[in-house]
Amino acid sequence: MTSQPTEMHPSRWGDPARATALPAEARGLVEMVFGADDRPAVTDPPLAPPTIDTAVLTRLADLLGAENVRTDDDTRRLRTRGKSTPDLLRARAGDLTDAPDAVVRPASHEEVAAVLDLAAEHRLAVVPFGGGTSVTGGLVARRDGLAGVLSLDLVRMKRLIAVDHVSMTATLEPGLRGPEAEALLAAEGLTLGHYPQSFEFASIGGFAATRSSGQSSAGFGRFDALVVGLSVATPRGRVDLGSAPANAAGPDLRQLFLGSEGTLGVITAVTVRVRPLAETKVYEGWRWPSFVDGAAAMRTLAQAGLLPTVLRLSDEAESALNLADPGAIGGEAATGCLMITGYEGSPAAVEAKRAAVTALLTSLGGSPAGEQPGEKWVHGRFDAPYLRDSMLDAGVLVETLETATFWSNVDALYSGVKTALESTLGQPSLVLCHISHVYETGCSLYFTVAAKETDDPLAQWQVAKAAACDAIVDAGATITHHHAVGTDHKPWLAAEIGPVGVSVLRAVKADLDPAGILNPGVLIP
Amino acid sequence: MTSQPTEMHPSRWGDPARATALPAEARGLVEMVFGADDRPAVTDPPLAPPTIDTAVLTRLADLLGAENVRTDDDTRRLRTRGKSTPDLLRARAGDLTDAPDAVVRPASHEEVAAVLDLAAEHRLAVVPFGGGTSVTGGLVARRDGLAGVLSLDLVRMKRLIAVDHVSMTATLEPGLRGPEAEALLAAEGLTLGHYPQSFEFASIGGFAATRSSGQSSAGFGRFDALVVGLSVATPRGRVDLGSAPANAAGPDLRQLFLGSEGTLGVITAVTVRVRPLAETKVYEGWRWPSFVDGAAAMRTLAQAGLLPTVLRLSDEAESALNLADPGAIGGEAATGCLMITGYEGSPAAVEAKRAAVTALLTSLGGSPAGEQPGEKWVHGRFDAPYLRDSMLDAGVLVETLETATFWSNVDALYSGVKTALESTLGQPSLVLCHISHVYETGCSLYFTVAAKETDDPLAQWQVAKAAACDAIVDAGATITHHHAVGTDHKPWLAAEIGPVGVSVLRAVKADLDPAGILNPGVLIP
Repeated sequence: MTSQPTEMHPSRWGDPARATALPAEARGLVEMVFGADDRPAVTDPPLAPPTIDTAVLTRLADLLGAENVRTDDDTRRLRTRGKSTPDLLRARAGDLTDAPDAVVRPASHEEVAAVLDLAAEHRLAVVPFGGGTSVTGGLVARRDGLAGVLSLDLVRMKRLIAVDHVSMTATLEPGLRGPEAEALLAAEGLTLGHYPQSFEFASIGGFAATRSSGQSSAGFGRFDALVVGLSVATPRGRVDLGSAPANAAGPDLRQLFLGSEGTLGVITAVTVRVRPLAETKVYEGWRWPSFVDGAAAMRTLAQAGLLPTVLRLSDEAESALNLADPGAIGGEAATGCLMITGYEGSPAAVEAKRAAVTALLTSLGGSPAGEQPGEKWVHGRFDAPYLRDSMLDAGVLVETLETATFWSNVDALYSGVKTALESTLGQPSLVLCHISHVYETGCSLYFTVAAKETDDPLAQWQVAKAAACDAIVDAGATITHHHAVGTDHKPWLAAEIGPVGVSVLRAVKADLDPAGILNPGVLIP
Repeated sequence: MTSQPTEMHPSRWGDPARATALPAEARGLVEMVFGADDRPAVTDPPLAPPTIDTAVLTRLADLLGAENVRTDDDTRRLRTRGKSTPDLLRARAGDLTDAPDAVVRPASHEEVAAVLDLAAEHRLAVVPFGGGTSVTGGLVARRDGLAGVLSLDLVRMKRLIAVDHVSMTATLEPGLRGPEAEALLAAEGLTLGHYPQSFEFASIGGFAATRSSGQSSAGFGRFDALVVGLSVATPRGRVDLGSAPANAAGPDLRQLFLGSEGTLGVITAVTVRVRPLAETKVYEGWRWPSFVDGAAAMRTLAQAGLLPTVLRLSDEAESALNLADPGAIGGEAATGCLMITGYEGSPAAVEAKRAAVTALLTSLGGSPAGEQPGEKWVHGRFDAPYLRDSMLDAGVLVETLETATFWSNVDALYSGVKTALESTLGQPSLVLCHISHVYETGCSLYFTVAAKETDDPLAQWQVAKAAACDAIVDAGATITHHHAVGTDHKPWLAAEIGPVGVSVLRAVKADLDPAGILNPGVLIP
């Protein structure tokens, strides 16, 4: 588990070996809807030289070993920004001005703490880097007033520290990426069950720092709900939290570091609830007359305490794409909305849950669509970011955003955000939506957009994104259900937590990070 | 719902009309075990005159109306301290030195905010008062350096502000006591399902401020898990949190105010998840060969996702008392451990859950004990504090404490705390324990002690309590699972959250309450 994981170029998602051009039918579809406008291949520009004193780099090398303090262009380039479409567009345009000055790779909590001490002393920004999959500008540290930027790469912190089979918990280091963590746990007969879209690259530390939510959240819960303990290195010292599954020992400080996005400390260990490896996995499709009908069924399931492991519902537009064969769009094709239900567990538990859910969904007017849509979804579920690259190559802007609200507000939020996006993206464009995380009291809405790029696709998206964020705030919903705040959502955070909430975040930040070195400019207004 | 609720004298629990002497058999039991040592009735001493300037009281009266600013001895006495045994012992000894100088009764968020402004201006401590049921010294504000103490009585804030039947949420004012909140919700066909021991008197605001957990936590969850939104009045201004069931918009600030025990602000509204009123309620008993066996069964249920609404397990000593007829103790009586399982919901849901739990418990070696033990428990479940008064009247010290840990640590925690209590309480004494809150990863342990009072029962308990808290810290468990920190657990909080955690709490406190008026001396070391 100590080998270097696959790296991602700042202009693209994922493993280059897996990147593929659009299949011919899809290419035809894209040309029909958006026209063809192939973009030139990206040529990497040279980076500006590092601004950090050689003496400081030497001290870092003394601390971590010279091989773990990198200032070469290739390494710095691979730690530049995250994977939002604006991040990719900037890199495609040759803008790598956010490259860190150096990439440091501590191997332990103590080494992280030592790096923080040195960074505070020399006023260097520290950007914790796990999987590099932020889609909200969480890896774009502000240099203002600081002497340079260190990317604190957690790639050497990939241990499974402890497993407690009685309590069903595991303690993981933050640099473990999703598949690495699952492989270590699988060897113990366990699973974490956390599968966000970014699963193949995103890290345990990042899941915690951003309050990630995965595709199996209905069965396993959000990542923050899986966390029972945390260790964090802060400039003020170490903090270890999690003395019990739950407690009344004052405010829950775990919930302050969860979602802190590297601004309050560097998470160096996470203790999570784990479950037995599933023996059986079944994924199915259901058809609903409308998005409203399907959403009402999800609400009924959630409020009945009868949730499958996976529960997703696409709106009419997304369903048409998912259900159609490429090329069939515009034909008679499919109508209504597609729901995916997935069941994971022991054969008996899967069958019992499946029978109960099937009975309830049938009684509510759903039509079973068999296992084919479910299998199609599960096999392609990590492909969307690759598809985005191909679409960007063809001059089509593709991006996602998400929010959440209470059930009674879903219709208003849906139409508000959809209208905001449709009215700002220009034509031709597509706005798709699905619900993929449900609670007794509400759910998230996840939007995917595709639009023919204008001459300035970055500005094009920023206008649309701002309109969507305004619509979210107007609807009283959350600015982010699981993508975190980063720099992109920061202008809307005060509307959500109010000036007193902002003041509290600043007070905590000032206490833990008095030099302001931790991911400056991110999260905290 | 606007009538004045029953008041509790500082030396006793509950409604005087319900207080009863010990039944003859129980009296016999107490005499046999502890001897008889009847204590004289308490005579209330006069209180020291209020120290607050008349001009300030006049301004408060202008704000709230003269009838809502009380300085008479009777009102002040009824807002003195909480209901821990030390609180009662001090009052029984005629020590009411912690009486507030005045009791103010705001009727709205705005009136609360105005009181805080005035209190900050004149340096008056403000102690929020809901049900007055703290058992950890949460209502004992430190006067040091301040001009006086206001009890901020939330008795006029008892509205059901909003109900959302679609999202299944309700917004409640903080002064509603448990039965009042349930009555308002029942009129809507809903229930909150939160039944702590203190249910009859404790308030919604207090549930939130102390992270209360109720006897139906297995089915309904801890109170903090029920909360989706909060409004708080702080000296720095109003904060409203809860834009969605869950979000990734930075740290979850709701979790900072939950458990804040009146030190960071006054909670003026709480939005909670609600459920349909149960049509059916069934409570049963199960017998287990040992506490270890019963606890293992609870763990299996929790990790199988198969929890009844109520799930409790008494250790051998507590089971002997619960299962025995009074007077039969020492005879052949019952052996083993008693578990209570309760099911609440629709008839179909109750039957399905009951069948599944019954099958699993039977397979694990449990023996059904019928409905009688369950019915006995449910009918007497709020009586213990009354019984404590009767025991104190007879010269028997009675108190409880609780903690929680992960499953793999339960045995060590149990024996550590039990030994600490038994070795410090003196003889004769009894130490009983039960598990009443379970999670996939662990559970709480709730201890009840009874001991013949020494000449100084307050010191007697303080020595035993300190030994128990040390044992909890030594075991790496939490100092409190649901009673909160107050003043009594404060010396052990730093061991749990570390110096960095303490620093964060202080920073938040300094930001929100720069004058240090909010419940000073409570919670924050």
